[in-house]
Order: sequence, then C-alpha cells, then structure tokens
Amino acid sequence: MTSADPTAPAVLDPRADIVELTAAIVDIESVSGNEKALADAVELALKLHAPHLSVLRDGDTVIARTELGRAQRVVLAGHLDTVPVADNLPSRRRVREGREELVGRGTCDMKGGVAVFLALAVEASDPPVDLTWIFYDHEEVAAADNSLTRIAAEHPEHLRGDFAILGEPTSAGVEGGCKGTMKLEVTARGVAAHSARDWVGVNAVHRLAPVLERLAGYRARRAVIDGLEYRECLNAVAIDGGIAGNVIPDRAHATLNYRFAPDTSVEQAEAHVREVLAGLDVEIEVSDAAAGALPGLDSPAAQEFLAALGGDVPVAAKQGWTDVARFSALGTPAVNFGPGDPLLAHTDDEHVPTEDLRIALASLRRWLGLPGADATLAS
Amino acid sequence: MTSADPTAPAVLDPRADIVELTAAIVDIESVSGNEKALADAVELALKLHAPHLSVLRDGDTVIARTELGRAQRVVLAGHLDTVPVADNLPSRRRVREGREELVGRGTCDMKGGVAVFLALAVEASDPPVDLTWIFYDHEEVAAADNSLTRIAAEHPEHLRGDFAILGEPTSAGVEGGCKGTMKLEVTARGVAAHSARDWVGVNAVHRLAPVLERLAGYRARRAVIDGLEYRECLNAVAIDGGIAGNVIPDRAHATLNYRFAPDTSVEQAEAHVREVLAGLDVEIEVSDAAAGALPGLDSPAAQEFLAALGGDVPVAAKQGWTDVARFSALGTPAVNFGPGDPLLAHTDDEHVPTEDLRIALASLRRWLGLPGADATLAS
Repeated sequence: MTSADPTAPAVLDPRADIVELTAAIVDIESVSGNEKALADAVELALKLHAPHLSVLRDGDTVIARTELGRAQRVVLAGHLDTVPVADNLPSRRRVREGREELVGRGTCDMKGGVAVFLALAVEASDPPVDLTWIFYDHEEVAAADNSLTRIAAEHPEHLRGDFAILGEPTSAGVEGGCKGTMKLEVTARGVAAHSARDWVGVNAVHRLAPVLERLAGYRARRAVIDGLEYRECLNAVAIDGGIAGNVIPDRAHATLNYRFAPDTSVEQAEAHVREVLAGLDVEIEVSDAAAGALPGLDSPAAQEFLAALGGDVPVAAKQGWTDVARFSALGTPAVNFGPGDPLLAHTDDEHVPTEDLRIALASLRRWLGLPGADATLAS
Repeated sequence: MTSADPTAPAVLDPRADIVELTAAIVDIESVSGNEKALADAVELALKLHAPHLSVLRDGDTVIARTELGRAQRVVLAGHLDTVPVADNLPSRRRVREGREELVGRGTCDMKGGVAVFLALAVEASDPPVDLTWIFYDHEEVAAADNSLTRIAAEHPEHLRGDFAILGEPTSAGVEGGCKGTMKLEVTARGVAAHSARDWVGVNAVHRLAPVLERLAGYRARRAVIDGLEYRECLNAVAIDGGIAGNVIPDRAHATLNYRFAPDTSVEQAEAHVREVLAGLDVEIEVSDAAAGALPGLDSPAAQEFLAALGGDVPVAAKQGWTDVARFSALGTPAVNFGPGDPLLAHTDDEHVPTEDLRIALASLRRWLGLPGADATLAS
C-alpha cells in the first residue's frame, strides 16, 4: 500500500484491455452532479497519452479534437454520469450461460461506450477524418442541466461536424436518429357540487371521456426514413382529478406524451395532437417538447461509417429520444452506437457483455483504419 | 368577575331566548373529538331543568327520555360536534338585508337544532308522545367513529321509536328519508412500457375510456316515494394513474360514488353499477356503502308531525345521506327538520337566520301542544 494524494486524479490507462479500462471507469463513481473525479481522470489520460489532441475542459466536460485539416469531421460523444448507484459498485465480472459480463452501475449506460471512445481517442493519432471526442456531464438529469445544452448555446462549434456518433448502448448495432417527444397537459373544467346533487354541477372527470376514447382508438403513423421505421406513439401517461369522495370534481387533468417521427417538427406535432382532440371541451397546453433527429444515413460520412462496420451490423431506428437530436438540430446527422443492451440501462442488474465492448472497439477501429480491428474478437 | 372553576361545566339556560341559547351552545367549541365540555353542559342543563327526564350519559353522548307510557315514542337527535373552526368563533349577530343572523361555526350545522331540542326537552314535561332526546358526538367524521354507530350496536333500544326527527339544517322545512351512498373502486390493469415503444405495453389509463364514457352518458333514475323525488347520481369522484412522463401506465383507477334511492338495497345498488359497467375489462370493488332511508311519511306519527307543522311547511326528499338512515335501518321512519340553510354548513360564513330558530321552535311547540307555538314569531 502506498499513501496516495486523495485530491490527485485517478490514473486511467487507455491502452489497457478494454474490459479492464471499462471497469476502472465504472469504479470511479460519477452519479450526475458528481462527475468531477471521472472528468479529471479522463482529462489527465488524454493529456498524458494523446499528444495529437487539443484538450479543452468546460465544467466537467472534456473535449478533445484532432486538427489535421481533413475534409470531414466526425464527433463522438459519451456522457460520464450515471443514474444513482443501487448497491452495484464496484464493478465485478461474472460468467452466465458461457458469456462473460461486467456488472455494475454505468457498465451499460454508458461507461462501456466511454471506455471505447477513450481508447480510440488515444490510438487514433492519424485518422482519415478529423475527430472531436466529447466526454460530458449531466445527461441523466433534466435537459436544461445537460452540459450539451450549455455547450450548444455557448460553443456550438464544438458540436459541429459532418457526422456524429453517440456512444449510447445499442448492443453494438447502429440506431439512427431518434423520435421527437412532446408533453401536453389536457385539462377539463367543470362545476363542483355535492355528489348527492350532481345536477347542479358538471363532472370534469367525465369530460375527459372523449379524450381517452380518442387516445384509445388512435392509430399511430409509422414513418420510414432512410429505410428505418419510426413508430409514433400518443399516450396518456398520467391522469388525475377529484376533491373528495362526496364532491363532483370541477377539474380533471391528463398528461399526454407524443413521440413523433423525426420528419415532423415540434410545431407540426402540436398541431397534430390538437387535431386529434379537436372539438373537445378541454384546454391543451404543451409543457415540454424536443424535436427528433433525422438519421441522415445517406450522408457520405454516415455511409463510410456503415460500410466500415460491414453488412452484418444491425441498423434500426432509435425510438427513444437521445442527445443525437442536439447534433441533428445543429445540422449534424447522428447515430447511436455503443456496447450494452439499452433495456438494461438504469436497472439494478445493469451489465455489459464483455464481447460487446470488444466488438464495438473493433468496429470503430475498422472504421478508423486502426490495427486490432479483428484480432480483439479472438481474445 | 368571579373566579370560576375551569373544570366545572358551562351553565346553559334552556329557558333563555332561543337565539341566546344557540349562541351559548355555539360558543362552547366542540369540534369532533372535543365534545366533552358541551356534552357536560347539556347533561347538567337537563339534570337541573328537566326532572321529568331520565338522563343517561354514554361517552360524550347524552340521552334523555320521558317514560310516560304513551302509545308512541318519537326520537329527536342532534349532533354536538362541528367541523373545524375557521376563525369564526365566538358567534356574533349581524343584520343583512333586514334579516338578523347568528354567525359562527356550528350555528347552522347544527347547534341551532341542538338549542331548539334542548329548549323543548325542558319545556315538554307532559308531551302527547313519549320522547327520546339524543345529543351525540362524532357525526362530522368517519361513520365508524359516529357515536350512533356504537349506540346502534350496543343499545339499539335507545334509538327505537315510532318516528325520528334529526335536527339537521333544512331551513325549518321537512326533508324526508335520504338516498343511500356507495363508493366503488374501479381499476384497469395494463402493461408498463417505455412511452416511445408503446406497442410492447398496454395503456391502463386508456382502458378507463369506456368507463368514463358510460358514466358521462348515464341517465339517472328519479324515484318518487311518498310523493318525494329522490334523484339518483352516479359519478367518478376521483381518478388517478401514471408512473412517469415516459412510461405507459400499467394501472389506472377511478373512485365512483353512487347515490341511490331509498327503495334500493345496497346489494341492488352494487348489481346496478356492475350492470352499467358490464363487459368492460376493469376490476370493480365496493369500498364503502350505506343504505338510504325511506321517508315513511305515511306512518301515523309522521302524519301527526306534518299536520302539526301545517300545510305551508315545505316537504322535500333529502338527497344527501344523513343519520336518518340509522333510524330507518332500525325500522324507525325519520325526517330531517332543523333551522339553517344546509348549503351553508361547513362554510366559513356559516350562519343561521334567527327567524329560522324561532320558526323551528314554534313548529315543534305546536306539534307537542306547548305554549308559545305562535307567539315567538312576533318577537
């Protein structure tokens, strides 16, 4: 045992085995708001091992860029933070059904992707395209606190490129673009009365009947864009109303969530929901909205990326909203690509198959023309 | 100033002017659970001024009976407690639009009725029927805590009679019987899913659509019994559901309140609601129920009471549930009759027109063959 300076950054070795590197990153706890130690460690590793990069620090976000004057620039971004720990740190390895897994908070969402990006940032000193690596904070909290919100506003040039790859878990497949999302508050008004004399009142809960009826009967659009199918969804995700057991409610309220295809603007999405509920005696207010992201798979940079990954890699539409939409809003087509099953994100049993880490690393090495594009699969 | 024993009961003078007596009773604060001081004062007043009565004390309930061997017995009952004070004690008098009012918590619900009953209990030493006076506690709270629940179980003989009068506010008109009330919990189940992938889930809130639709389109029965019209009501009085803004709810729930005519049993009422919702994929559970009370206005004792009040007194159905149902359940027809507008009960501006107090007192004096049946109106 040596006595270490507790304020000194942890030391990460980006050239270590990818599973060891992932475990080391996972073991630096970084629940949203507590990313500093991990950001320090990432910044130090890049400064020590990647002299070909210019490294910027902005809050707890680390941005590292090549400046090689290439014709194209690709942005690779991964968030450093996790949702709260559920007694699942430090990480551990296990073998289940013959498959090795790294288990613990962040293994899937998305420190596996962060480890792959950190390894490649160090390896790719002479890439065919210029690269921007972004390791950012506050993704697992409100969008307003997400550091990409701040950077998009203050330094949009950091996010610009011809193509962007977000390291969110996709089981090392490609998930293109994402749907938009809108929250709407639907309120019905009535007149309170004693429930034994309802004829002097108007029941606001009953006034939501045709709202629910239209939602229940709604047939959602399926939009195919660049060969990917985005299935829209329109749902009541919450409902509430009622004053007391003997009172006719004078107010009832439902929250709707509309997930709309990325060929639809926020304005068009709102107009559509208003049309679905047209003629009903309710108030409708949009309380939150974020546009989707077009997959942009027909762009040259995206085509080169897909070609390098090979014909076997699964390519699908991303149904949930992710930060790819921020790049799309700046005109940069973006996809999600990372190790780990997205359905395991945030679960207590969060884990990543170690093979996913190796496949993701090998795939991106192939794309960047680096050695080790195939060998890792055999290890 | 004399130094008083603070533990001694307050002294009420049942022979005082009815407005003064009401004010004195109102000024002994008796929010549910705190009825002891008022029960002590009522008990003392009866023992001091009504030697013709046998007085029983049961908890904070005072029961006083004549034992004259009359052919009929009439029960007159009033609750001593009030809902919480809203900075509206002590009482005060005011004149509005030429009408004198006594203002304060309990003036309407129902210390005006208590005052009238206390005055009459003392005056009526030789009534044409035997009388049982009940001054009881815990009416404004859960039915299980109502002292009549305990007395009906332990000493049903105290509640028995040929006719009962509950002193609840009716603006000194007669409100016969009461409707029954039933609370039902309606639950829809679904399958939770991410709201961007709703096709792998089932939205439980949407499953309530046909429930609300049937309630909104429900045409309630109007039952005419003994010439009184009881209008039934079936309503959702509360609705809730929702897990998070991005999750398809797997459970949604509505509370229904069914107010049914007194010719309908609790079992029939439940069967009716199940029929209204027949075929829908929801769970239905009765969480509370109380039968109504038939007006029984055709009984001889009721007819004598109505005749004594005269043809001018308004007679209507009681729509809300009241303790008359407890008497009805024991086979005793019962009506509500008391000073004060029932719509003012529980309001911050609770008050009673002083004329209501005098009219109610005079009406009951007429029925009991007591002097002062008309004179008070001129005072």
